[in-house]
Amino acid sequence: MEEYKKLIELSEELTLLGDTSALLGWDQETMMPARGVGYRAKQMAYLSGKSHDLWVRPEVGEWIAACEEEVESHDGNEDQCANVRDWRFDYDRATVLPRDLVVKFQQISALGKATWAEAREKSDFSIFAPHLEKLVDLSKQQAECYGYDECAYDSLLEGFERGARASELTKVFAELRPELVALGKEISERGPRVADDLLAGDYPIEKQQAFNREVATAIGFDFDSGRIDTAVHPFCSGVGPRDTRLTTRYDLQDFTSSLFGVLHEAGHGMYDQGLPADRHHLPVGRAISLGIHESQSRLWENHVGRSREFWQYWLPKAAGYFPHLATLSLDDMVYAVNKSAPSFVRVEADEVTYDLHIMLRFEVEQAIFSGELAVADIPAVWNERMKEMFALQVPDDAQGCLQDIHWSMGMFGYFPTYSLGNLNASQLTAAAKRDCPAIEEQIAAGDCSALLKWMGEKIHQPGSRYLPGELIERATGETTSSAAHLEHLRDRYLG
Amino acid sequence: MEEYKKLIELSEELTLLGDTSALLGWDQETMMPARGVGYRAKQMAYLSGKSHDLWVRPEVGEWIAACEEEVESHDGNEDQCANVRDWRFDYDRATVLPRDLVVKFQQISALGKATWAEAREKSDFSIFAPHLEKLVDLSKQQAECYGYDECAYDSLLEGFERGARASELTKVFAELRPELVALGKEISERGPRVADDLLAGDYPIEKQQAFNREVATAIGFDFDSGRIDTAVHPFCSGVGPRDTRLTTRYDLQDFTSSLFGVLHEAGHGMYDQGLPADRHHLPVGRAISLGIHESQSRLWENHVGRSREFWQYWLPKAAGYFPHLATLSLDDMVYAVNKSAPSFVRVEADEVTYDLHIMLRFEVEQAIFSGELAVADIPAVWNERMKEMFALQVPDDAQGCLQDIHWSMGMFGYFPTYSLGNLNASQLTAAAKRDCPAIEEQIAAGDCSALLKWMGEKIHQPGSRYLPGELIERATGETTSSAAHLEHLRDRYLG
Repeated sequence: MEEYKKLIELSEELTLLGDTSALLGWDQETMMPARGVGYRAKQMAYLSGKSHDLWVRPEVGEWIAACEEEVESHDGNEDQCANVRDWRFDYDRATVLPRDLVVKFQQISALGKATWAEAREKSDFSIFAPHLEKLVDLSKQQAECYGYDECAYDSLLEGFERGARASELTKVFAELRPELVALGKEISERGPRVADDLLAGDYPIEKQQAFNREVATAIGFDFDSGRIDTAVHPFCSGVGPRDTRLTTRYDLQDFTSSLFGVLHEAGHGMYDQGLPADRHHLPVGRAISLGIHESQSRLWENHVGRSREFWQYWLPKAAGYFPHLATLSLDDMVYAVNKSAPSFVRVEADEVTYDLHIMLRFEVEQAIFSGELAVADIPAVWNERMKEMFALQVPDDAQGCLQDIHWSMGMFGYFPTYSLGNLNASQLTAAAKRDCPAIEEQIAAGDCSALLKWMGEKIHQPGSRYLPGELIERATGETTSSAAHLEHLRDRYLG
Repeated sequence: MEEYKKLIELSEELTLLGDTSALLGWDQETMMPARGVGYRAKQMAYLSGKSHDLWVRPEVGEWIAACEEEVESHDGNEDQCANVRDWRFDYDRATVLPRDLVVKFQQISALGKATWAEAREKSDFSIFAPHLEKLVDLSKQQAECYGYDECAYDSLLEGFERGARASELTKVFAELRPELVALGKEISERGPRVADDLLAGDYPIEKQQAFNREVATAIGFDFDSGRIDTAVHPFCSGVGPRDTRLTTRYDLQDFTSSLFGVLHEAGHGMYDQGLPADRHHLPVGRAISLGIHESQSRLWENHVGRSREFWQYWLPKAAGYFPHLATLSLDDMVYAVNKSAPSFVRVEADEVTYDLHIMLRFEVEQAIFSGELAVADIPAVWNERMKEMFALQVPDDAQGCLQDIHWSMGMFGYFPTYSLGNLNASQLTAAAKRDCPAIEEQIAAGDCSALLKWMGEKIHQPGSRYLPGELIERATGETTSSAAHLEHLRDRYLG
């Protein structure tokens, strides 16, 4: 079919441009000299402008409409249906906003990072509030353009996690929240299982790098199709079908910081490396959502990397690189990397408290977009909730509602995908272990191949064939819920 | 003027695309994982195809014609004239070839590297000859399309060095050749001034890197606008107006290998960093030619880096990094980095013999394109000339006419630019020292700022305002000749 072919060609072109931008972005964060920044911004704006112009042409809309008719009348195969489904979604999202709204949003959000950084630096929400109000207002206008069934917030959520609905998330979180609070209390009453400075020592960067590389290779990250570099804010970036780049950062007093960074990013990276390379240029060959991506990073970071079976194999290896670890017991090592305590800052939170931080943000975002909460009142609500959940008195907004960058760029609806990642990770791990009972034993022997193979078949290779909800249901037999995650946490922290 | 503005906008777009390709290329040589290669080729082909399509549109030709009229009738300023001059040159070069000739040349030259590599590996010219014949034939067709006054070869030369003519090069080389041969003989009769293994020792990479970085910073390479990485075949790549990337390679037994690599590439890099950044997007903001670029690299590598005054300052510093050098006398150090002997391989040749290697290639290329020499006879002629010049018997074609990659990609007329670089470097150095007699004294105190400032004013900042011949004449008072170079060599090797 002519129109389908044209869309495939256009997809290939846009993918080439997108991957080129990804490399420019990776280079900026890892390699670029300081004074390259202004020109790099120009390059990236040029490329994304080119992509946008190619995509929003009226004839592209006509091609998509023709494909939709064809697919409906002839029962296209799953991949064709997914391609057409995503072309439609991307096209509508790109064309439905009036030009002046797009321009205004870009202008305001471009100023966001600096305004937010200043506000956080001075811990003064009033500096950020006018900016945030504008972004909320523009995002509300966007939401009306995108359209929604239940609430405006859903249409923003949809931009990060296809098919997610605030109403369903609310149900899942309603189950999760009291259990997490209760679990946190129980852990806190029991008291710490190991001393806080148990792992303290000198960890030279070169040794950390060598150890991390050995671990990443062993769990299945392919260094012929990827690499690891250093970045201030670690990330994973796929810059081509066989070119996946991880980053981490190093703490010279704590080797687990870079290690868990690498495990987390390698989880993202192995998802990328497992996507169908022959369909890299098509929507169906892409990762389906942030919530699925985060499930893979959390799985390798937490379910593998913080497990007893992992350290059974890797503690002696680690002691080979860092001799003072040789005296550590396996129990102590596992306890040392599984500590939980209330904290102010999301990115430093442990597995038990992390999702409570997300729920707080989710509630605030919903209340803002339903009109129940004014931007000016965010700090008060934030601090109140922190007291309820953690019995913590937020000392200043820098450690409170100003801690995250997301809102400064107008990213509302992003936070819930972190929790979806955590829940999906637990549910997928449980399902994989049901299907292959030998997984734990293998990991204890340094072999993660069965787990990776299962993830490859169930999650990586399907690419975007199924929306996240269906993908998880097909892989685990049920939709995303809190059950497996709670079981995992109880087992790990109280078992 | 409307057309001039349109061309400026188009130039900006093509510069953004070109710099993006440059980054993709740099990344491929320094960072890219092995399996990224196929997709990277696709990306680069896509970007260069896009640039080509944007440039060869008929309306672009009309804009250029309109600008030419305007510039002629209104006496445009020098920069405008240079822009229009180069737009015309680039446009004609890009549009004058028939499509099927372009495609055929791309197809054949794409296979070139592999065919050449195999032939060199087996030292069997007959494997390479049919391929080379095709490329010569296609290049002859190209030359006829480009047009020329004196000989077809000139039109190929023109692609690498604007305004260069075989007849003039022949005159310059005719003066140079007997003098170099005589000088080589004199050096050989005198015998070596130091033992061959004088510098032998262990030179850890990290120490070499730290020393090279200190030297590169001191001579004026700006690390806020650049960096140094490792590559198999060292190069310098400008990927933006304030982003210049050097590469080098390391010999663990000889620190001068990476050091002279860095000095050479930093010479290229400081030219890039000295170009007018505000005109980066215009023809006039670009480097004017290979022969000028190579003058800068050779200048810092040879005239600075192998000079007595350089080592006066840097030998004690080097001994700080590599303690066994502390016992070395300044004389011995200078002699150790200024050795000359006949050799088979151009890239390993010293300052005295290097240009003889180039003249050999220049003669062969000219004879091929005038029809005097058949491709099949290249090895015989090559070996005969090597005997004449160096009294060396070429043992096999791998060390003879198969040693260079250039012809395999259809690059005929490139080699002479290396010698132009050497001659220009000597002529520029002499002129700079005439203008600022303190230069040598400054270098002996570790300060190269006067020399760099002079090069900046005379060579870097003009960008492409003047063609190479005029640029050199304006800077030194005379056109490129062999006089300064011969004086430099006699002084260095016999002084």
